[in-house]
Amino acid sequence: MKILLVFAHPEPRSLNGALRDVAVQALEAEGHEVRVSDLYADGWKSEVDRADFTQLAPDARLRVAAASGEAFAVGALTADVRAEHEKLLWADALILQFPLWWYTMPAILKGWVDRVYAYGFAYGVGEHSDDHWGDRFGEGTLAGKRAMLIVTTGGWEAHYAARGVNGPIDDLLFPINHGILYYPGYEVLPPFVTYRVDRLDDAGFERVAERLRERMRTFATTAPIPYRRQNGGDYLVPSLQLRPGLGDPAAAGFALHLEDAAVGG
Amino acid sequence: MKILLVFAHPEPRSLNGALRDVAVQALEAEGHEVRVSDLYADGWKSEVDRADFTQLAPDARLRVAAASGEAFAVGALTADVRAEHEKLLWADALILQFPLWWYTMPAILKGWVDRVYAYGFAYGVGEHSDDHWGDRFGEGTLAGKRAMLIVTTGGWEAHYAARGVNGPIDDLLFPINHGILYYPGYEVLPPFVTYRVDRLDDAGFERVAERLRERMRTFATTAPIPYRRQNGGDYLVPSLQLRPGLGDPAAAGFALHLEDAAVGG
Repeated sequence: MKILLVFAHPEPRSLNGALRDVAVQALEAEGHEVRVSDLYADGWKSEVDRADFTQLAPDARLRVAAASGEAFAVGALTADVRAEHEKLLWADALILQFPLWWYTMPAILKGWVDRVYAYGFAYGVGEHSDDHWGDRFGEGTLAGKRAMLIVTTGGWEAHYAARGVNGPIDDLLFPINHGILYYPGYEVLPPFVTYRVDRLDDAGFERVAERLRERMRTFATTAPIPYRRQNGGDYLVPSLQLRPGLGDPAAAGFALHLEDAAVGG
Repeated sequence: MKILLVFAHPEPRSLNGALRDVAVQALEAEGHEVRVSDLYADGWKSEVDRADFTQLAPDARLRVAAASGEAFAVGALTADVRAEHEKLLWADALILQFPLWWYTMPAILKGWVDRVYAYGFAYGVGEHSDDHWGDRFGEGTLAGKRAMLIVTTGGWEAHYAARGVNGPIDDLLFPINHGILYYPGYEVLPPFVTYRVDRLDDAGFERVAERLRERMRTFATTAPIPYRRQNGGDYLVPSLQLRPGLGDPAAAGFALHLEDAAVGG
């Protein structure tokens, strides 16, 4: 497979830097071809602003979705964004790697999403009507590809467990896994999460690295998270509510959006 | 009260810009004193990097939490970050206003959090031992103050309802309300969310504005979201798991972190 790894840590000598090298080497050892977008090294611009839309008249009001769609349609997005589109279309799979800062990705990676996920590319794709609410959540430009998160956090695993004070890690990552990766079509693999990274000694690092190598060895075959497809019949259109009768009555919140067979499975 | 509003939209002529003016005027009409941090207008830097830590030797490895704590302790954080600390300590309350982009805040506002929430200021506060896991989630530097989100989104309210495809809005905002605002001590008010903002005509805007004015009129008296305090006895230490027997058995995920009396109330 062809794999794009987007890396968002400011220090190449960090644990994240070391894990990135482990991941790339393990993927290449499997015969995969890997490209890396190193956001800090590349000086990635994080803010969506009017400089992103070169076709916009200087005195025109910036309407972000409209400006994004116009720029995408006429090939007027900036070169850095177009380069990422080219990589995303080249790749069969996407890996986002980052430290969990304040329960989500660092700003520079959010800025990669905000700017690269153009209207017409990642959203605003497909028919939008009262019968079909776009090609998204299982369909879209990036359908048929795989995606996965590699995440580090200083907190304890127990703090991110089902009853942990931070909230369950799967729920904290749902807005990314479901809302950013599944939305434009990716099949999303379970995340690779490392806890208590500030206390990792050499032996601890080697255990983490081996666990990561195993995930990279099985990258092409690991079963994705069984999110429901928006247009697969489980949701009413246009309200996009889960149909009555679907969903484990004991489940609530984000877990409703897993296929019924998967809950408690 | 003294109120800081942090505003994160690139276009002053946007709906968000208009709502900010509505909010500020309504708060001032109540006698509150308001300051605004306009991140785009101020050219806010979004990325945490080594330039943030002026005390760091040029060849030293950047360990973000450690560098942040050292810089905070000796007053070596950058001037833009210190100015935000001064405003946060001045204010009795914080409002974060932003358009929901990819189910969370825009990168520039995440960058405000990443950079302003220094170690020793917003985290790493209080004793950290096996008996007391820091002053956080209800305690901390900003305890006794109020906070609230003002959020706009293009999607329908139904899509963010309990069974909507996006996931419930309260769950999508939990990592911000609980993980970013409640963490350093704020009492968090229910968010003000406006849906379908791309379809808003003048009459629709006036309805939204009036609803926002009402929230601003009652800002000082609105009951906060009843999150459980980390150090109030509901969590085991150091695992920080909710004690057995607490939490509605029918609740799961983030809702467990509301006080029992609040669930279903």
